[in-house]
Amino acid sequence: MAGIGIVGAGVAGLHLGLLLRQHEVPVTIYSDRTARQLGSGRMLNSVAHHHATIERERALGVDHWEAEEYHYFGHHHYLGGGPQPLVFPGFFTAPSRAIDYRLYLPALLEDFVSRGGEFDVRPVQAADVVTLSERHDLVVIASGRGDMSAMFPRRADKSPYDAPQRKLCVGLYEGVAPSDPRGVTMSVAAGHGELLEIPIYSSAGHVTALLFENVPGGDLEMLAEISYEDDPAGFEKTILDKTRQYHPATFARIDPAAFHLTGPLDVLQGAVLPSVREDYTRLPNGRYVVAVGDAHVVVDPVIGQGANCASYSAWELGHAIVEDPNFDERFCRKVADRRRNRVYATADWTNLMIRTPPPPHLLRMFGAMAQNQAVADEFTENFSYPDRQWDNLATPERVQHYLTARGLS
Amino acid sequence: MAGIGIVGAGVAGLHLGLLLRQHEVPVTIYSDRTARQLGSGRMLNSVAHHHATIERERALGVDHWEAEEYHYFGHHHYLGGGPQPLVFPGFFTAPSRAIDYRLYLPALLEDFVSRGGEFDVRPVQAADVVTLSERHDLVVIASGRGDMSAMFPRRADKSPYDAPQRKLCVGLYEGVAPSDPRGVTMSVAAGHGELLEIPIYSSAGHVTALLFENVPGGDLEMLAEISYEDDPAGFEKTILDKTRQYHPATFARIDPAAFHLTGPLDVLQGAVLPSVREDYTRLPNGRYVVAVGDAHVVVDPVIGQGANCASYSAWELGHAIVEDPNFDERFCRKVADRRRNRVYATADWTNLMIRTPPPPHLLRMFGAMAQNQAVADEFTENFSYPDRQWDNLATPERVQHYLTARGLS
Repeated sequence: MAGIGIVGAGVAGLHLGLLLRQHEVPVTIYSDRTARQLGSGRMLNSVAHHHATIERERALGVDHWEAEEYHYFGHHHYLGGGPQPLVFPGFFTAPSRAIDYRLYLPALLEDFVSRGGEFDVRPVQAADVVTLSERHDLVVIASGRGDMSAMFPRRADKSPYDAPQRKLCVGLYEGVAPSDPRGVTMSVAAGHGELLEIPIYSSAGHVTALLFENVPGGDLEMLAEISYEDDPAGFEKTILDKTRQYHPATFARIDPAAFHLTGPLDVLQGAVLPSVREDYTRLPNGRYVVAVGDAHVVVDPVIGQGANCASYSAWELGHAIVEDPNFDERFCRKVADRRRNRVYATADWTNLMIRTPPPPHLLRMFGAMAQNQAVADEFTENFSYPDRQWDNLATPERVQHYLTARGLS
Repeated sequence: MAGIGIVGAGVAGLHLGLLLRQHEVPVTIYSDRTARQLGSGRMLNSVAHHHATIERERALGVDHWEAEEYHYFGHHHYLGGGPQPLVFPGFFTAPSRAIDYRLYLPALLEDFVSRGGEFDVRPVQAADVVTLSERHDLVVIASGRGDMSAMFPRRADKSPYDAPQRKLCVGLYEGVAPSDPRGVTMSVAAGHGELLEIPIYSSAGHVTALLFENVPGGDLEMLAEISYEDDPAGFEKTILDKTRQYHPATFARIDPAAFHLTGPLDVLQGAVLPSVREDYTRLPNGRYVVAVGDAHVVVDPVIGQGANCASYSAWELGHAIVEDPNFDERFCRKVADRRRNRVYATADWTNLMIRTPPPPHLLRMFGAMAQNQAVADEFTENFSYPDRQWDNLATPERVQHYLTARGLS
């Protein structure tokens, strides 16, 4: 075949490309950035890969970070806002890890090219896709950049928000002692948002990502606006002050004298509009184009699901391509069917987590987690299985059923 | 839990009920007929179970017909209408079998009851379902009888015909020597319809089902109208005469002197309107009801897929019930997603097979089967996997691609 064209060199595009190369399918990945540019720019995110994703990396032969030093083992919860904070851990059945994507993506791109994948650096706009579609058997859009996403209509029924629900400020820091056992700390400052403290490996070594998820109108919204570039010391002082006041479990492990951003590009600020888009579109020439990753579903980073979902979705799409390389509407519908449950669950669960105020059944689950280690562990494990999480969490009735079945209601 | 209520004691209801009992879920099957009535009435159908269905029976521990005497091994094709008939076999990877449902259903019902299933004989109408829904955690409609199907709106997009495409006349006969190797003979009389000659086990022993699938307006339509009861000898003579003229491959194995219907109830005439209905409905009390089998999808019997599809669909539903017993809309949608591909493929493939005139890409596939044993075997094997069949057959482009990939175009 003339092969598959993939627009985008993020985790979705690379996992898809690597899977297809394992099956000797010709693949070209288009990117507007070289490997060097991907590796040397501003930080891209602070996402962790959970073990379901790591299993895919192992199957792809790209598990370059299998040593224990890269791993963490669960979540430390600090839920403020009540008379007493709820403080409890939850553990995975297998570890997660966070690798700076400026290391991760170039490494996988090298794997891809060394295995016969084509890498074509050029800007691709939506207007170019018809031309690409005539060069390839199938074009996959694995980039939400520029105007690519707009090819796929946003689904109002799965996109409950008209505006971002969190203002984001994420950076890489030295001077934060790891939690014990090593894990992500999820700190909730009721009414103001969350801090995700993530052990991450970057070019600076083992450092800490602090991802502030700030409620618009809350006391921490300003973290998404202050400029490190204009005033590095003032920026770091503000981060320290806000952490002390709102996220004390993390602050307790910070050495203020050693606390620094690891570099001027190691900070990212902004906001995300959660969106679920159609799975595919038909071009004027009759060819079909499939969306994966951010082109398909954008979630707030609060529970770190975006990259894991993109990898999962790419995996399902890749197997569909290998099994049935007839790229018509039947193909697209089969892809949509096989990934729908987990992908929608990822979006729905994330959207529940950022609802303000948090719905009572979510708080009820948190309360049960604080009292019951098995419940906390299952919730934590389900960061690998958002569909199972959503089975337990989707409605007040489901939470009731879940707790009743465990003698906890 | 208060358990699952299943309306209907056909293959869908019984396979579902047996699967749930394996997982110790309380189940009640409602039927308007006793086991004795199911076993002693007019013949119900002439369906074969293919090996994907037999594997489910094995897993359920209801494989009571595992001896080779019950098995057949493939299809003998006789495609008339061209300058020369196309005559060729196709073979399964594992055998199929046809058991008269008047033996099959009571046997499985006995298994169900002996394993703790409740069997409640009473007429159930659509108006009764709200009451049932308050007695059970979930009600499943596994019967297309009476007004039950109308609870689930017919989907125009998946139901291409407004009227039956075949007039049916099926009976059980003595005096037909089996084909060698034992198989179903599929005889096509172009413009007039098909004869399916099926080795079947009934209370009369190993006999032959002759299922005439007659095109409305064709020379054999009258077979659906003539009355055995009014004139048994005349009925049998007409069957013989039409078989001689239109389906010579089968006629060649008939001993006219020994040719008789095995009993006055061993004939069934009528027609089927192919319909795909919604997967589920919401009752006025907020409870959801799921359709399976004929309540969900009705296909013409021409390729014997209805019971196999009903069993498959029940299997997927049963596993969904065990995995996530929260019977809300999320549950229903998950069931729909997981069974959609194979169930729709069953309907779409069957609807293609009864299109008049047959579409060129179907004829092209038949031509390839006649020339290439591997293609004939794959088509035959895919009676167990309608979704794979449809991958190869759904469009002219897919047939082209399939043949090209095998060097046959």
